[in-house]
Amino acid sequence: MEENQTTLVRFGIMGCATIARKMSRAIKLAPNSTPHAIASRSLEKAKAFATQNELLDEQGKLIKTYGSYVELLDDQEVDAIYMPLPTSLHVEWAVLAASKKKHLLLEKPTALNLAQLDQILEACQVHGVQFMDATMWYHHPRTAMMKQVISNSANFGHIHKITCTSCYPVGSDFLERDIRVDPEFDALGALGDLGWYNIGQILWAVDYKLPTFVTALPAATLNSKGIILACTASFQWEEEPKTTATFHCSFLSSASMDVTVCGSIESVHATDLTIPWQEKTASLFLTSGAKCVNLQSGSNVEAEEVVVETQLPQEALMVQEFALLVKGIKSCDKTWAEISRKTQMVVDAVRNSIDLGYKPVYL
Amino acid sequence: MEENQTTLVRFGIMGCATIARKMSRAIKLAPNSTPHAIASRSLEKAKAFATQNELLDEQGKLIKTYGSYVELLDDQEVDAIYMPLPTSLHVEWAVLAASKKKHLLLEKPTALNLAQLDQILEACQVHGVQFMDATMWYHHPRTAMMKQVISNSANFGHIHKITCTSCYPVGSDFLERDIRVDPEFDALGALGDLGWYNIGQILWAVDYKLPTFVTALPAATLNSKGIILACTASFQWEEEPKTTATFHCSFLSSASMDVTVCGSIESVHATDLTIPWQEKTASLFLTSGAKCVNLQSGSNVEAEEVVVETQLPQEALMVQEFALLVKGIKSCDKTWAEISRKTQMVVDAVRNSIDLGYKPVYL
Repeated sequence: MEENQTTLVRFGIMGCATIARKMSRAIKLAPNSTPHAIASRSLEKAKAFATQNELLDEQGKLIKTYGSYVELLDDQEVDAIYMPLPTSLHVEWAVLAASKKKHLLLEKPTALNLAQLDQILEACQVHGVQFMDATMWYHHPRTAMMKQVISNSANFGHIHKITCTSCYPVGSDFLERDIRVDPEFDALGALGDLGWYNIGQILWAVDYKLPTFVTALPAATLNSKGIILACTASFQWEEEPKTTATFHCSFLSSASMDVTVCGSIESVHATDLTIPWQEKTASLFLTSGAKCVNLQSGSNVEAEEVVVETQLPQEALMVQEFALLVKGIKSCDKTWAEISRKTQMVVDAVRNSIDLGYKPVYL
Repeated sequence: MEENQTTLVRFGIMGCATIARKMSRAIKLAPNSTPHAIASRSLEKAKAFATQNELLDEQGKLIKTYGSYVELLDDQEVDAIYMPLPTSLHVEWAVLAASKKKHLLLEKPTALNLAQLDQILEACQVHGVQFMDATMWYHHPRTAMMKQVISNSANFGHIHKITCTSCYPVGSDFLERDIRVDPEFDALGALGDLGWYNIGQILWAVDYKLPTFVTALPAATLNSKGIILACTASFQWEEEPKTTATFHCSFLSSASMDVTVCGSIESVHATDLTIPWQEKTASLFLTSGAKCVNLQSGSNVEAEEVVVETQLPQEALMVQEFALLVKGIKSCDKTWAEISRKTQMVVDAVRNSIDLGYKPVYL
């Protein structure tokens, strides 16, 4: 039976991770969702988080707080779970959430590997709940505009090369203590935390067609526990005309979020595709080959800046999209699950290539 | 004996290539040089070029024109040769020019391989003439500013990653007929014509320290004659902390001249390092890690744009620098020769890696 279209999707937030601050604001901003409860392993922590972030329910009261995740999942008033747990805990809690009929907005990386993600997706399928990973940049209107540019093959031409970076300098405290460099929690390191974005961007650019093979470039930087702190990888599509992609992700370098898609006729570039520098506007830079740079005579043409406005930040647009699917679905929507699945598959391939001594891994 | 510091360096232009238009303007613009003669295999072509480009000598008369390169090299009034011949002809004519005591400003790529370049450099050394390859971007003040930024290791940190692209869409006529895709003339294709810039930029960023090894990425796009139309390669410096570089050069993609250097504390980015979009100003974009993008809370800081002004275009600054060296030298200046030599060495390594089936080539 179709759910009521006018009521808000009531979110339960599972854990008080730093990213949950940004996401609880997004749940408040999205017009079709509301925070409803928050759980932490410590009730005090959950209460402090709800208070500090002014998380009010539909009646304007402080949202419910729980000292255990199970209690949150048992709350019949909660429609959907936003789950920012450490990656190694995803499979256990996501499967349980689905079995409790909670729709699932799951932080990225979705799982430690594809087998785990498939368990999660199967549980969502079986229990008829919506799945989406919390990759925000897909939902910005600038992304749609860029996609329109590169999809117009008469104007853009064939996509020859995609180049992305995802760098974020974490500092020595993080390198020693953060869960994202601890194999107990986030064994994928920078590849899962940052490379996830680039892999998604590359797949997005080619309409989610998997590359023929993936090769990590020697040499990745690993910590003493084997966690990836920085790596570079290349993707190859073998059909003619060829497409090549490279990305670099790193916890060690200054912030960089460049994405460049080079077509045979036009190129498009953004410096902040993953997280826009500004909340209300975002730019893309378009170079047209028709009035291309002339290396011989020097008659250059600067890239054209296209500014895209948005009323809501991309994380709120993501919540809105998710909530629309939750409200609208009769059976599980497969699109977002497929995107997550392909992204995870390529994450695994890059990790495998590193483990195999930088050999190509065919998909 | 030291030459007169006040007279202008008199250039002989060897060939009427399209790039010679830009360079003859640069020779006119540089305050310490003047065009003096031009040669083509056809005297009519040389005359037409001199007239169309208004090439006047110090006396304000149309410069001398020759119907053969040998006549130009035998002109005792010519101090220096600008040589934009097809690459396969460089070794023969550059060695002859040096033997005639002509200083040599040689178009890039300098030669088909290092062995040929070494013949040219040896001839310059033996005959005491200045050598420089005609890579323009080294001479722009923006380049010096960028170098200052990345060399300040206390502020910039360790260079972890350098990413460059050099794409220029050539069109079908070029792909069928241009000398740069003909093994008789420019057997290095896009690698020599465009990759040359990126390889130089990468080496420049690391103070010309050669990488431990170079790996071309599968798969390069070659034409039916085996000429590289597009390729991607990675460079690795193995010492800790590691440095990785990747570049992509292509005749097939829309114009793109991005260079990004990611340091542990700051990153710097330019979209037009090879050829500035504007003649009088050029920008670099600096992201400081201290006020870095916060992926968790979204408090982003946009890259700071630094605009560098120049009175002369970079090609005229190059000519000026070359002419200063010509006037000032008593023996051959080695710096520019060393830069060309290392660039050519890495060009050869990338080509070898492709020929070896994308295996790493150690330097």
